[in-house]
Amino acid sequence: MNAPAEPRAWNTRAQQRARRLARVASALGPAPRGKQVANTQAVALLNAAIEPFDRVCLEGNNQKQADFLAQALVQVDPARVHDLHMVQSVLALPEHLEVFELGIASKLDFSFSGPQGARLARLVAEGRLQIGAIHTYLELFARYFVDLTPQVSLIAAQAADADGNLYTGPNTEDTPAIVEATAFSGGIVIAQVNEVLDRLPRVDVPGGWVDFVIPAPTPNTIEPLFTRDPAQISEVQVLMAMMAIKGLYAEYGVQRLNHGIGFDTAAIELLLPTYGESLGLKGRICRHWALNPHPALIPAIEAGWVQSVHSFGSELGMEDYVAARSDIFFTGPDGSLRSHRAFCQAAGHYACDLFIGSTLQVDLQGNSSTATLGRIAGFGGAPNMGADARGRRHASPAWLKAGAEARAGRSGAAGTPRGQKLVVQMVETFREHMQPAFVDTLDAWTLQQQAGLALPPIMVYGEDVTHVLTEEGIANLLLCRGDEEREQAIRGVAGYTPVGLARDRRMVENLRDRGVIRRAEDLGIDARDASRNLLAARTVRDLVRASGGLYRPPKRFRNW
Amino acid sequence: MNAPAEPRAWNTRAQQRARRLARVASALGPAPRGKQVANTQAVALLNAAIEPFDRVCLEGNNQKQADFLAQALVQVDPARVHDLHMVQSVLALPEHLEVFELGIASKLDFSFSGPQGARLARLVAEGRLQIGAIHTYLELFARYFVDLTPQVSLIAAQAADADGNLYTGPNTEDTPAIVEATAFSGGIVIAQVNEVLDRLPRVDVPGGWVDFVIPAPTPNTIEPLFTRDPAQISEVQVLMAMMAIKGLYAEYGVQRLNHGIGFDTAAIELLLPTYGESLGLKGRICRHWALNPHPALIPAIEAGWVQSVHSFGSELGMEDYVAARSDIFFTGPDGSLRSHRAFCQAAGHYACDLFIGSTLQVDLQGNSSTATLGRIAGFGGAPNMGADARGRRHASPAWLKAGAEARAGRSGAAGTPRGQKLVVQMVETFREHMQPAFVDTLDAWTLQQQAGLALPPIMVYGEDVTHVLTEEGIANLLLCRGDEEREQAIRGVAGYTPVGLARDRRMVENLRDRGVIRRAEDLGIDARDASRNLLAARTVRDLVRASGGLYRPPKRFRNW
Repeated sequence: MNAPAEPRAWNTRAQQRARRLARVASALGPAPRGKQVANTQAVALLNAAIEPFDRVCLEGNNQKQADFLAQALVQVDPARVHDLHMVQSVLALPEHLEVFELGIASKLDFSFSGPQGARLARLVAEGRLQIGAIHTYLELFARYFVDLTPQVSLIAAQAADADGNLYTGPNTEDTPAIVEATAFSGGIVIAQVNEVLDRLPRVDVPGGWVDFVIPAPTPNTIEPLFTRDPAQISEVQVLMAMMAIKGLYAEYGVQRLNHGIGFDTAAIELLLPTYGESLGLKGRICRHWALNPHPALIPAIEAGWVQSVHSFGSELGMEDYVAARSDIFFTGPDGSLRSHRAFCQAAGHYACDLFIGSTLQVDLQGNSSTATLGRIAGFGGAPNMGADARGRRHASPAWLKAGAEARAGRSGAAGTPRGQKLVVQMVETFREHMQPAFVDTLDAWTLQQQAGLALPPIMVYGEDVTHVLTEEGIANLLLCRGDEEREQAIRGVAGYTPVGLARDRRMVENLRDRGVIRRAEDLGIDARDASRNLLAARTVRDLVRASGGLYRPPKRFRNW
Repeated sequence: MNAPAEPRAWNTRAQQRARRLARVASALGPAPRGKQVANTQAVALLNAAIEPFDRVCLEGNNQKQADFLAQALVQVDPARVHDLHMVQSVLALPEHLEVFELGIASKLDFSFSGPQGARLARLVAEGRLQIGAIHTYLELFARYFVDLTPQVSLIAAQAADADGNLYTGPNTEDTPAIVEATAFSGGIVIAQVNEVLDRLPRVDVPGGWVDFVIPAPTPNTIEPLFTRDPAQISEVQVLMAMMAIKGLYAEYGVQRLNHGIGFDTAAIELLLPTYGESLGLKGRICRHWALNPHPALIPAIEAGWVQSVHSFGSELGMEDYVAARSDIFFTGPDGSLRSHRAFCQAAGHYACDLFIGSTLQVDLQGNSSTATLGRIAGFGGAPNMGADARGRRHASPAWLKAGAEARAGRSGAAGTPRGQKLVVQMVETFREHMQPAFVDTLDAWTLQQQAGLALPPIMVYGEDVTHVLTEEGIANLLLCRGDEEREQAIRGVAGYTPVGLARDRRMVENLRDRGVIRRAEDLGIDARDASRNLLAARTVRDLVRASGGLYRPPKRFRNW
């Protein structure tokens, strides 16, 4: 009964791996230097190592890109290598889509496509690319170990040694998750490196997990995505940051948090040592962070606000500063940052009390999305962090207070005491080009139709949002009871947008009386105090100065 | 404005590390063999390396234990080393609590304390141990990178080489998360190993992350926690397994799932190649798994049901079988399993459509707990997997169907389309000693008072449970509208327990008419067919036979 119906081979992955390695050996000739392959042989290597319909991870991170391998992949022979299923977190380079245009790849599972969002939408519309799904980062990594395990991974590191050990330097990012899933399932791992060293400053990925190392002709691309020039922060953003600090961070006693990209949150970071200090909040809020080394956090770190930072990736120019602040950042014996997106996303999910992020559109249910017509932007880390971590069981004052507010007066399962994560959407009521941020219907619904998705690409669900913060005030959705109250709370901070103008004034005033909506003045904030003078740094140069010269911003941010 | 008020040292962690290493060097004398320390010097090493109030992770996994280091830790001088804050996932060994009895440690953050639960409760009651919080595994690992970073970690591996590279073999488990958090924050990592080799079969942890290696006098303890003898599976469990397969797995088309420990789920595994086959379900359900190498899964694997398994840890006796089935399991070049609890928990959270587990108590809201009076058992992985992963964005048929059932007819934020994870509580109405599994009030409430916890230690919240499965049928809580329906749906499968007897018969019949409650006969299952003959293996010996002799059960499971 238990015996298989017919004999079956149980090591086909190992056989396939051996077949690929033999093909590579024959294509490249005897390898003179162990795992090392000359960059002139990169295309030949890929032609030999990859098979049609393979799941391939071409390392595209939020920052670091395996750009040389991307350039090699678009040169493979589509007659040999075709119908690849790309499984990678970020589409950042033109080559990431070119593989689809060239017929090398046909299916895509990913997380974020920021700069390539419009082109991606076009390829989908033309039927040249099938989207499996759009994920949040940790979700995609999780599937690497279940049903999206890569057969071949093309990754990037700073350096390798003769044994194939890799040094990623500050940008470890996705690499450990990708390599582990591939290497332990009989897959092939190919790394481009900037240099080959006799002895690495530290080992980030063991050499036994890596099959081939290619010294790339130029260092891999890295984008400084988390640098925000304080000169561009507006006084409206200062006002909103004051409300965030006094009305949310202080109100809930938020000690552990994540900040996303954006000027709104950069303003908060820059107000901690000034406005936050004046409120006596030092040590009482914002001690532990899950975020990349934001230059805007330098003044708060220098003023002693920050106890620890764990990072998804790094940030260009912050290398010396991070090395000199090893009490704060996770660093290796070489002094440079150890980032790790998978662990940092786990930290953002389970060990932070608050996620605050910007968005492009918010609807009347509080659903928000950065998807706009003609662009498939993806989600990045926001869904993972901008959702209640329902598996969390440890308590903190902020989490308990949010949970108690959500559950007050409720019965049954919804009344069982439980904490809740604070998920704040921070938006100006009008975004660029006077587009209202508040809408009756998200563009995501149209995009769902256009891209043939199972659900609209909602980044943060209204059910998970606890507060909406605009220049008009804070709507506390935890305190709302019923759809009608929730809708009016959102309308009540939506300003002069059509959604805001359609508010029920009496109901909104009632919500304000109950503290569901709080305006700046309700928080004891005088909007006239919201001056750029409150920013602890008003220019990038100020940030450099605050760092004692340790922060070395990329050229594009230097205008002095 | 930005300059710190007074000069501050920013590398105190590095200084502290240097101080500890210098103290170790002076205590041990010059180390003759690099990082290697004789086991006779273990206590001296810990006395020198650990400081009072340190956060210490003494690696206690679900299976693998750093037992030699635990024995050394209880021998340190409490006058020197005291008030440690232990941050470790599992309390399994007597020494894990002895450190508190001896005054060496005073605070504890953990996940699971199975065998030590009663002693732990006693220590808490006596005020000799302060519990920080009880976590689910991934949550605790997440905090290692935020506010519970260990200063010293005492870990276990199979082997080390002269450079301190570690080979964990099949039981990698928690080790990568622990070591990474410690090593990249200036902490000290001390590993006990079973042997020192010139060349490791593979590297699981790079040597640069490890400070000291101690060859232990005896191999580290490993428990075969996931072996369930099929001989102990009852016909009631067979009936429940039939309902699970037909009424849940087939109904939703569950392809990716996690099974916990337990005879209930072992019965499901053993029915796949028999009952599942007879329903034509092969290839349609249960293809991808996040679970340890359960011996009970052998017949399903051999019959071709299983495409992939990623594991939290390993299982004793399954080594040769796993090595011979490398298409199914994640294995290294040495042939042995690569487990990784952090990634497998991420997989269980984000990449599985269903979690099914047993529990000890379920209340009328559907909240469940394994906490019983006088025992602080902890949560393990259940909360992480037994909760809706609200950050998930990729769709699958099972997830979409569950989400649609939950949202049908709802408006507002709760009506926005979204998928949902299937979370099934599988319990017989009476557990051991005729204790009812259904109760009006969970013991967790009393335990909260006794242990001074912020919330009752609920393992899986009723809000997250989608189905309750007993021998009396399946209650689909997704379809319930309102507290009253939910309560009656639970009562309706609670059998002859007081909770079950107090059902409103008319309402329960109405729920049954609507398919909210489904009895075996409603599913076309004749309870008389629920015979042990349906099990693909009825003894451990059958499992060995099904494995072609590759499975080698530990002695205690061999009775032939």
